[in-house]
Amino acid sequence: VKLYDCKTAPSPRRVRIFAAEKAIDLETIEIDLAKGEQFSESFRNINPDCVVPALELDDGTCINEVSAICQYLERVFPEPPLFGSTAVELATVVMWDTKVEQQGLAAMRDVFRNSTKGLKGHALTGPVSYEQIAELAERGRRGVSVCLQSLNERLNGSEFVAGNFFSVAAVSSIELVDFAAWVKITIPEEATYLKRWYDAVSSRPSATA
Amino acid sequence: VKLYDCKTAPSPRRVRIFAAEKAIDLETIEIDLAKGEQFSESFRNINPDCVVPALELDDGTCINEVSAICQYLERVFPEPPLFGSTAVELATVVMWDTKVEQQGLAAMRDVFRNSTKGLKGHALTGPVSYEQIAELAERGRRGVSVCLQSLNERLNGSEFVAGNFFSVAAVSSIELVDFAAWVKITIPEEATYLKRWYDAVSSRPSATA
Repeated sequence: VKLYDCKTAPSPRRVRIFAAEKAIDLETIEIDLAKGEQFSESFRNINPDCVVPALELDDGTCINEVSAICQYLERVFPEPPLFGSTAVELATVVMWDTKVEQQGLAAMRDVFRNSTKGLKGHALTGPVSYEQIAELAERGRRGVSVCLQSLNERLNGSEFVAGNFFSVAAVSSIELVDFAAWVKITIPEEATYLKRWYDAVSSRPSATA
Repeated sequence: VKLYDCKTAPSPRRVRIFAAEKAIDLETIEIDLAKGEQFSESFRNINPDCVVPALELDDGTCINEVSAICQYLERVFPEPPLFGSTAVELATVVMWDTKVEQQGLAAMRDVFRNSTKGLKGHALTGPVSYEQIAELAERGRRGVSVCLQSLNERLNGSEFVAGNFFSVAAVSSIELVDFAAWVKITIPEEATYLKRWYDAVSSRPSATA
């Protein structure tokens, strides 16, 4: 199994943290996004969407999308469970993971991709060119803040994002906080529950992955 | 188990189709989105994001997000499997479901919410007001077309979206095609594989759900 990775990018780090929590030793192949290697002919055969992470199985099957890679690894390496154990835990994990992805990380990508000079014409990932929309960067900043506030409320009375256990929803939330710091959005002073949680999860060994 | 539903909205229909494929008889409670019932105090207690679908379990636990509801139903009602059977099938299903959600349905929501007069101030779902961005509606139309084309290529040589079996990825794709028709985006003439697939899946009894 090989992970197509980029050490500096937010999305593949989610898979690296996930794998580290399970003590899975993944062979990684670095794709240099700054040099545009994701658009190369050879990488398009791995992932036609031209994004990392991508997981190539030993038989050549390629799995793209963080959610799909994590579900695959969970099934093949079940311990420790990062999608909960019961049906309700699974649903709670997927619900929070989806919220953080679609409300938080999507907004954060809007900020980054619509406001970074070097990404002109790349307002969405992938091979199709999309122009930047300045209003979308602004809207994204608000979306990230709303999501951080929603996480703070959730963490009032809940040890972790999806309940009393560490899960893939926590991995996505760590990445949201760390990615937001790129554009100087930090955890607000008053978000004490989020701060307490972040201090705990970001000091786990996996956070250095 | 109760499903908070809206008969005319795209997202809850995905859960209804999913449940119909498994012959699960879900009690439904209609939330009138046109009247703004999703913003009522009582519904906010079910889903603070103010969107349907939401699934309320018998112990009062609420599961939001289509992905989470479907994963829950899959675990509790495993037959027939709609997330595949093996780890690779599961990963392939989640990969395509995520692609259709994040590339296709998200773009379609951008079109609809940024161009519908009655949705001014509601360019994103939920309780926070966001102004419409006309450019985003335009960009969304292109995104929907790109996703339909990507599905057409995939369906060249693959009976269903995620392989040789019907899955939740097909459910999301049906909804993408049907939702796109709201804004007069139809399957292009030349997309013959997509057309063949759509004719087959939309004639399944579940498609009337």
